[in-house]
Amino acid sequence: MSDSENRCGALVWSPFPDMGSASTAANVLLDEKLVACANMIPQMVSIFGWKGEREQSSETGALFKTNAALLGKAIERIGELHPYEEPAILGWRCDEGAPATLAWLEELEQ
Amino acid sequence: MSDSENRCGALVWSPFPDMGSASTAANVLLDEKLVACANMIPQMVSIFGWKGEREQSSETGALFKTNAALLGKAIERIGELHPYEEPAILGWRCDEGAPATLAWLEELEQ
Amino acid sequence: MSDSENRCGALVWSPFPDMGSASTAANVLLDEKLVACANMIPQMVSIFGWKGEREQSSETGALFKTNAALLGKAIERIGELHPYEEPAILGWRCDEGAPATLAWLEELEQ
Repeated sequence: MSDSENRCGALVWSPFPDMGSASTAANVLLDEKLVACANMIPQMVSIFGWKGEREQSSETGALFKTNAALLGKAIERIGELHPYEEPAILGWRCDEGAPATLAWLEELEQ
Repeated sequence: MSDSENRCGALVWSPFPDMGSASTAANVLLDEKLVACANMIPQMVSIFGWKGEREQSSETGALFKTNAALLGKAIERIGELHPYEEPAILGWRCDEGAPATLAWLEELEQ
Repeated sequence: MSDSENRCGALVWSPFPDMGSASTAANVLLDEKLVACANMIPQMVSIFGWKGEREQSSETGALFKTNAALLGKAIERIGELHPYEEPAILGWRCDEGAPATLAWLEELEQ
């Protein structure tokens, strides 16, 4: 990744079973400076296919802010902290961000 | 798209008028193996410009997980299933994902 | 940015302290044709690190739809309108969108 790509922010989306488990994971990720923030959305309804079955459940959506250089590590750690055996975790680099936001996310690596 | 780009996950965002219509569309998309999961967020407030008018409505946000190779088809099918005449549907490829998530999304094509 | 990249949609994510401030900002952005729509998610729980402290607050998540050519301007203007001194604002280009959605977002520049 080029230097400028490395500097851009990144977001990670992962549904959790509830607010408690999402908050617990968020606090560890913040302690370990892998994310700067977690926005958690309660009362989400999820419908998904899993091992050939259709399932529906109430979940808490967690959207984590990190920077592009830490994206892979953050995803890996979320996987370790997540209560599901095989959680859904997807991350993407952001093309632009407010200057203060990018500086804040860069501080994660200092 | 290169092979590796094709393998990455993708997300599609589309607001629906309510949970019922979002769930109905989600189940068809799952039946047709165009998405692996739908996360639906109720009680969203939307403000938008439409044909010169300002409008505000309560909506359900739907975030669908698919893979990059199916992104176009999934968007097209969501458009067909959506109750709005011209629904807002935007999709983006994800740069990274947990290995189990990518494998799960790849199964959509088997 | 190439012509086709310019034509694609874009999304901006920014948490606000409450629905009121998010709606006020959304209406100004719509007046100034910098976004076509704001989806606002109430009762979000945020945990974040700020100036060395861990903080938790209830926020309203705002997801704005714009087009790639306006992404930078929209982010800048959200920063000016946002009640926080240093709000978190991240934006990304979308790889695909429903044709009617892309046309609707392109109208922002007419």
